[in-house]
Amino acid sequence: MTFSLTILGTGSAVPTPQRHNSAHLLNVNERIFLIDSAEGVQIQLKRYGIKFQRINHIFISHLHADHYLGIFGLLSTFNLLGRKKELIIYSHPDLEAKIKAVFDKEVFAFNIIFRELNFKEPEIILDYKNITVTSFPLKHRIKVCGFLFREKPNNFRIKKSTIEKYKPSVLQILEIKKGNDLTLGSGKVIPNSKIALPPEKSKSYAYCSDTEYYEKIIPIIKDVDLLYHEATFEEQHRHLIKKTGHSTAADAALIAKKANAEKLVIGHFSMRYKSPSTLVNQAKEIFENTFSANDGDRYFV
Amino acid sequence: MTFSLTILGTGSAVPTPQRHNSAHLLNVNERIFLIDSAEGVQIQLKRYGIKFQRINHIFISHLHADHYLGIFGLLSTFNLLGRKKELIIYSHPDLEAKIKAVFDKEVFAFNIIFRELNFKEPEIILDYKNITVTSFPLKHRIKVCGFLFREKPNNFRIKKSTIEKYKPSVLQILEIKKGNDLTLGSGKVIPNSKIALPPEKSKSYAYCSDTEYYEKIIPIIKDVDLLYHEATFEEQHRHLIKKTGHSTAADAALIAKKANAEKLVIGHFSMRYKSPSTLVNQAKEIFENTFSANDGDRYFV
Repeated sequence: MTFSLTILGTGSAVPTPQRHNSAHLLNVNERIFLIDSAEGVQIQLKRYGIKFQRINHIFISHLHADHYLGIFGLLSTFNLLGRKKELIIYSHPDLEAKIKAVFDKEVFAFNIIFRELNFKEPEIILDYKNITVTSFPLKHRIKVCGFLFREKPNNFRIKKSTIEKYKPSVLQILEIKKGNDLTLGSGKVIPNSKIALPPEKSKSYAYCSDTEYYEKIIPIIKDVDLLYHEATFEEQHRHLIKKTGHSTAADAALIAKKANAEKLVIGHFSMRYKSPSTLVNQAKEIFENTFSANDGDRYFV
Repeated sequence: MTFSLTILGTGSAVPTPQRHNSAHLLNVNERIFLIDSAEGVQIQLKRYGIKFQRINHIFISHLHADHYLGIFGLLSTFNLLGRKKELIIYSHPDLEAKIKAVFDKEVFAFNIIFRELNFKEPEIILDYKNITVTSFPLKHRIKVCGFLFREKPNNFRIKKSTIEKYKPSVLQILEIKKGNDLTLGSGKVIPNSKIALPPEKSKSYAYCSDTEYYEKIIPIIKDVDLLYHEATFEEQHRHLIKKTGHSTAADAALIAKKANAEKLVIGHFSMRYKSPSTLVNQAKEIFENTFSANDGDRYFV
């Protein structure tokens, strides 16, 4: 099953042609989710070949300009291109008023549903057949949520030989897929391990931006495959984290390590750095499997 | 004196990486004016090396998304970068409410002055020592203004030999610069043509987007050096101009011809065209000195 992340923007605060501001696109089995929508997100989506009318869910972590200003252009273009399909936006409730003020005299042919995020505790905000999305509070100057996208447990995989040998009924197949044994007409029980393979690992991705180092998120994102965590500062600027509510690269790496993440991608780099090489090196000292994000990077889980 | 135009966006409706939406930047003797501010304008300004904190005047032709959504990111960045200097925005009055709704909880360290455009008749909206800016109504689905930037008449240029020969006083110099003759102490009158050169031609630039073919603008932009006029459609799509309120390339060329413009630049191309070559060819049949705009183009008047 496809589970891929396209990173559309990797800069912080002020965008540049090389580093747009925050926006991520997650493709889970061709269902696509947009996480944050910085200015120019529609242009970035085009640049990286994404059919963006397929976006039905947008998750906005917080209402700092570098995380949401692209929503206006995106909505406008959805409408211009004839969108009819409902769109759900998960955000701080203030976003609704902003969108309504910007488009006050325009009538969209599609419906927007605004879902208010819970900034007090983790909450499952989307529960699909094969995936759940959980929001969880981060720690920043204003209210921010991170998001965890986790596939639901996959089925046990029935061996082809099982079908041929035992010809199980539809109901029996469903039981085997759940991991149960097969009871034959004779009463004989065939253990699941003989007739099926264990499920493929469920894939997961967590988005943590913007935030200070915040240990409360560790149990929520535990064992995540792909962790994106902001890393605005190098160690030499650690004194800025309290005032700004951001993390150093080492902070991000320590979260990845304590959460037992498989892979860490860092971004949201302060524009004071010409290159993220020091940031990624500082993270790697704590969590080896760290990558620095560039606009357009794609990760397959 | 510098009089240069940088075109930051040349597409219509939906932006692409190759053609951002409308925004122009005019540099008149290092005083810079931003005309329209489509999404991503701050990124385009960076891409083309423009120090955008020097923008003190922004002119927004109308409130269609592809002409103003970049104002939000620009204002946010002005503030982040510590701007203190007052900014004047000339626009439809609704823009003020939109900006206030988007930034409702943010305090900017600089003052924004909103100036309401006159959509009924031409009006001088800015009168500087060396330039005037005139807004004038265009014809579109919603209220739109075009803008004419015109240098004030330049002075007659006193010949070096005049100073040496007649040693005129400061007051006499001012009179000569105005084009007057010089009266000597003896009562003898030296004609201006003998002691001064005629003024350099005053430079001018007009921005006409979005609009249908609209002859009322011709006397206003008469003899303009550089005319930007939207050219959304080829002739084959002329049937769309009424419904959309746009022009064909031939319409733009006819305006240029009737206004006796020096040079025509067309843009705001419909995204249905892979290339503007047919558009520019159709314009050239009517007005030879036509150019199709590309993002980043710079014209020196």
